Amino acid sequence: MNYIVYLSGEIHTDWRDKIKDAVKEHNLSVTLVSPVTDHEASDEVGSQILGGEDKPFWKDHKASKINAIRTNKLLGNADIVVVRFGEKYKQWNAAFDAGQAVALGKSLIVIHSPELTHPLKEVDAQALAVTETPEQVVEILQYICQ
Amino acid sequence: MNYIVYLSGEIHTDWRDKIKDAVKEHNLSVTLVSPVTDHEASDEVGSQILGGEDKPFWKDHKASKINAIRTNKLLGNADIVVVRFGEKYKQWNAAFDAGQAVALGKSLIVIHSPELTHPLKEVDAQALAVTETPEQVVEILQYICQ
Amino acid sequence: MNYIVYLSGEIHTDWRDKIKDAVKEHNLSVTLVSPVTDHEASDEVGSQILGGEDKPFWKDHKASKINAIRTNKLLGNADIVVVRFGEKYKQWNAAFDAGQAVALGKSLIVIHSPELTHPLKEVDAQALAVTETPEQVVEILQYICQ
Amino acid sequence: MNYIVYLSGEIHTDWRDKIKDAVKEHNLSVTLVSPVTDHEASDEVGSQILGGEDKPFWKDHKASKINAIRTNKLLGNADIVVVRFGEKYKQWNAAFDAGQAVALGKSLIVIHSPELTHPLKEVDAQALAVTETPEQVVEILQYICQ
Amino acid sequence: MNYIVYLSGEIHTDWRDKIKDAVKEHNLSVTLVSPVTDHEASDEVGSQILGGEDKPFWKDHKASKINAIRTNKLLGNADIVVVRFGEKYKQWNAAFDAGQAVALGKSLIVIHSPELTHPLKEVDAQALAVTETPEQVVEILQYICQ
Amino acid sequence: MNYIVYLSGEIHTDWRDKIKDAVKEHNLSVTLVSPVTDHEASDEVGSQILGGEDKPFWKDHKASKINAIRTNKLLGNADIVVVRFGEKYKQWNAAFDAGQAVALGKSLIVIHSPELTHPLKEVDAQALAVTETPEQVVEILQYICQ
Amino acid sequence: MNYIVYLSGEIHTDWRDKIKDAVKEHNLSVTLVSPVTDHEASDEVGSQILGGEDKPFWKDHKASKINAIRTNKLLGNADIVVVRFGEKYKQWNAAFDAGQAVALGKSLIVIHSPELTHPLKEVDAQALAVTETPEQVVEILQYICQ
Amino acid sequence: MNYIVYLSGEIHTDWRDKIKDAVKEHNLSVTLVSPVTDHEASDEVGSQILGGEDKPFWKDHKASKINAIRTNKLLGNADIVVVRFGEKYKQWNAAFDAGQAVALGKSLIVIHSPELTHPLKEVDAQALAVTETPEQVVEILQYICQ
Repeated sequence: MNYIVYLSGEIHTDWRDKIKDAVKEHNLSVTLVSPVTDHEASDEVGSQILGGEDKPFWKDHKASKINAIRTNKLLGNADIVVVRFGEKYKQWNAAFDAGQAVALGKSLIVIHSPELTHPLKEVDAQALAVTETPEQVVEILQYICQ
Repeated sequence: MNYIVYLSGEIHTDWRDKIKDAVKEHNLSVTLVSPVTDHEASDEVGSQILGGEDKPFWKDHKASKINAIRTNKLLGNADIVVVRFGEKYKQWNAAFDAGQAVALGKSLIVIHSPELTHPLKEVDAQALAVTETPEQVVEILQYICQ
Repeated sequence: MNYIVYLSGEIHTDWRDKIKDAVKEHNLSVTLVSPVTDHEASDEVGSQILGGEDKPFWKDHKASKINAIRTNKLLGNADIVVVRFGEKYKQWNAAFDAGQAVALGKSLIVIHSPELTHPLKEVDAQALAVTETPEQVVEILQYICQ
Repeated sequence: MNYIVYLSGEIHTDWRDKIKDAVKEHNLSVTLVSPVTDHEASDEVGSQILGGEDKPFWKDHKASKINAIRTNKLLGNADIVVVRFGEKYKQWNAAFDAGQAVALGKSLIVIHSPELTHPLKEVDAQALAVTETPEQVVEILQYICQ
Repeated sequence: MNYIVYLSGEIHTDWRDKIKDAVKEHNLSVTLVSPVTDHEASDEVGSQILGGEDKPFWKDHKASKINAIRTNKLLGNADIVVVRFGEKYKQWNAAFDAGQAVALGKSLIVIHSPELTHPLKEVDAQALAVTETPEQVVEILQYICQ
Repeated sequence: MNYIVYLSGEIHTDWRDKIKDAVKEHNLSVTLVSPVTDHEASDEVGSQILGGEDKPFWKDHKASKINAIRTNKLLGNADIVVVRFGEKYKQWNAAFDAGQAVALGKSLIVIHSPELTHPLKEVDAQALAVTETPEQVVEILQYICQ
Repeated sequence: MNYIVYLSGEIHTDWRDKIKDAVKEHNLSVTLVSPVTDHEASDEVGSQILGGEDKPFWKDHKASKINAIRTNKLLGNADIVVVRFGEKYKQWNAAFDAGQAVALGKSLIVIHSPELTHPLKEVDAQALAVTETPEQVVEILQYICQ
Repeated sequence: MNYIVYLSGEIHTDWRDKIKDAVKEHNLSVTLVSPVTDHEASDEVGSQILGGEDKPFWKDHKASKINAIRTNKLLGNADIVVVRFGEKYKQWNAAFDAGQAVALGKSLIVIHSPELTHPLKEVDAQALAVTETPEQVVEILQYICQ
């Protein structure tokens, strides 16, 4: 049995790489998947492929929908969704992914610093593990893969 | 046919009242439901009923789960979920509700100012209407109730 | 037990009224629901409520999504979906509704003239009754309501 | 993760081949599936295998149902449904497939010329990408496969 | 809480009336629903409303599909499906209803004489009660309604 | 919006009555439902209605299945499932109900003394509230009904 | 894409072998699965493994439930369910399987002689193909596998 | 077709090994999966990875939720769930797993001694086989794998 793990949220640190490296090192039966984490590519994809827009709203709209094709597949097929909240930015897409994950019956793991406990309480309440570091996520994956 | 509409998100302005008043005034076949919007009651409910906690995390945890009993029922039975994002606070619970709503197949309506377009683009992309004011929500309800 | 019947498709003849009158006359335990059948209102609703658009695509987009809020509720709650195809126009929305109805497990009844048999064969193949007139739909409703 | 993509709709141009060639050329992790696109075989299959019919309605009926066995499997297992609308014919089966795809939670991509924007507005409103050419579909597949 | 009970199967004895009378007499919170039990009406309804057919197969086909509109609603909304197998006829529709009921998660109650135990073993194995008389069904309804 | 609350588990104390009385007193929009709590009636119902059995296994089997007809309906329609574990007996049916409740997406509330924390840890982990007294359940119902 | 086809019903002729041989000969992408077709083994399995019973009802009960473990898996994973009705025996299990197949959204193909048209009309009405011979089933599989 | 079998419940005897050895010996197309059966590791995993807790309740809570990530995947993907009840301990987690299994539509097999028949009657009533030894489970697997 192989776990499919979708890594959602913060894209400005190397937390995904840490998990990837550890999964490889420990040879875990885990397939890691992610959204497109190249920020600019992700923002521009709609106008790039489907043509430019005068209004920023529609430019964003077209990009987000193309990204949703990927999310539908990868999050929709995941067994576990890991969502990392960083210190900066609004990150509503991360909380939105967490909401989708819970409603779809996925096992949710959250990563955030203790400072964010109060604003994330509704998300944490639905998570099966609330961690502070990617290393803890790796330890959980090791444990459930034994 | 009566629409059940769950009003989620921002709790510091009177937008819910505006919608309630208009629904009553126009006699629309709409049942409005909401989370508990008394901020303090909502934060304290866990320790109040189930006993205090030393760690803020567990205090929040117990409160959030009791609130989730209400959300499960009201959002789970809604036809339409309206989520308002304000200018302040992290509001991850609002985005989380939006994610749940979409995954459960609810019709999503979002209310926010144009300044929030870019950070809300993934949420807006799944919405059936992106509005700026509660009055626009009322107009939509009037239209679909005719 | 009361049947909810969604009347989809062609909006230029009075077929919905014929069914409504007969349901009332025979006092059938049937609730009839429909999309907004005022063509202009339906086309203009997006720009009317949410603001105008330069591109016709986005104007149509906003209108269609508001109409989808109504369809989600009424078609989603229906037991039976009746779709009438007329002689004119492309009527892709009618076939689209029929596809949604079938995938959602609704009982599908189709109304069209025999000339349209071949192009509608995939739709007819999934229908539980293929009729030519609203009177036949009424007879079916009478039969199943006895 | 491999995307299963069902290519529905118009069968008189070589748009499917263009997508197939590009998927092979770029070595994308995409499995392309389609209905039987041999028009005559598809029309005749019912009477061919199950015996002739006097009435065209039943001949079409038997053929459409055999074709539905294939559609149930291939569209039902798809992650993405691409529907192309051409300039000619009624193409209600294409809109019907689009409706089924949306109700089943598939990611919908539509291909059509701008002239068809208004009659396809309900379909487009539910699509995650509205394109004009198969090349754009390929670009989307390349983007989500990275 | 009111139980909806669908009474399927054998139509040549008055077992449905016995249950109806007892439900009324004991004032049970039970709504009884049934297929159309007028054998001739049920056989003729297709050709009656939709026009005659040369082949018996298509005549039966049209009738069965109209009857299915009723079954979809009544069996689909039932909490409990009671299926009675008599001594005569093939009664494949009764076993077919039982199969649908089980797959839809309905509570199945079967009524048949002990002589039919062996050929009905697969049906009985999925039933929550295997009875021999309508009186036993009434006793069960009384017990669960207390 | 009215909450349907299924009261499962321990049948030897008057905890259900305490909740019923409080719901009535506070006029809460709550419908309380329960299994048959008359122990002997529940044990004997199978042989009583369907005839005696030599083996205790089959006697129990027939009784449990008739009770399951009630559980399917009442637990299946509940929004909230409250399960009380007492100090005595094995109470596997209570844990079984809790497992069904969670898998069906019901909000689970558990009542038990702190001594039972360790053996109930898997059940508690899925609950939205772990209480020690029926009074706490009433407080939660009051809170979510406001 | 590989079709999983469950072959249900009549076990006294070699129709399954005919389909198996043809699938192998034409190298079709089809996986054929079946219930245990050894009549005696199937009847005796309950008492054989779980111990004898005095009453035939319980002997049959135990056997049918073990057989149901296999059916749940094989029919539950099938894309297509083929049910053959022979001339003899009551074959309620075949009709029961057909009912389950339809309710689970499987594509149903029926095989029977024209003499059985009337008693099988409800089953046929839900089938996507009504055939008379296994050769016709093979032709359908060939067509949908092209 | 390969059966996925989740082995739940009692962890103090070698019943899982007996089944594993026999599956290997008979070369059955069965994949066996289990919870983490190292009692101490399972109890300590929460505090080990996520940090210690003063209250035993929260220590257990964190451990149980991490274990639930594994259960969600393995039980959620199983075709068959085997639950063994031993003579000692409360084993509510075993009954809880059984409840989840049934609600998720899994085929349930139970192993327990005849002494436990009465307290397990609700669980047994939903099982497709009630056995006393792992050898009987192996015989069932052999039978359904033929």
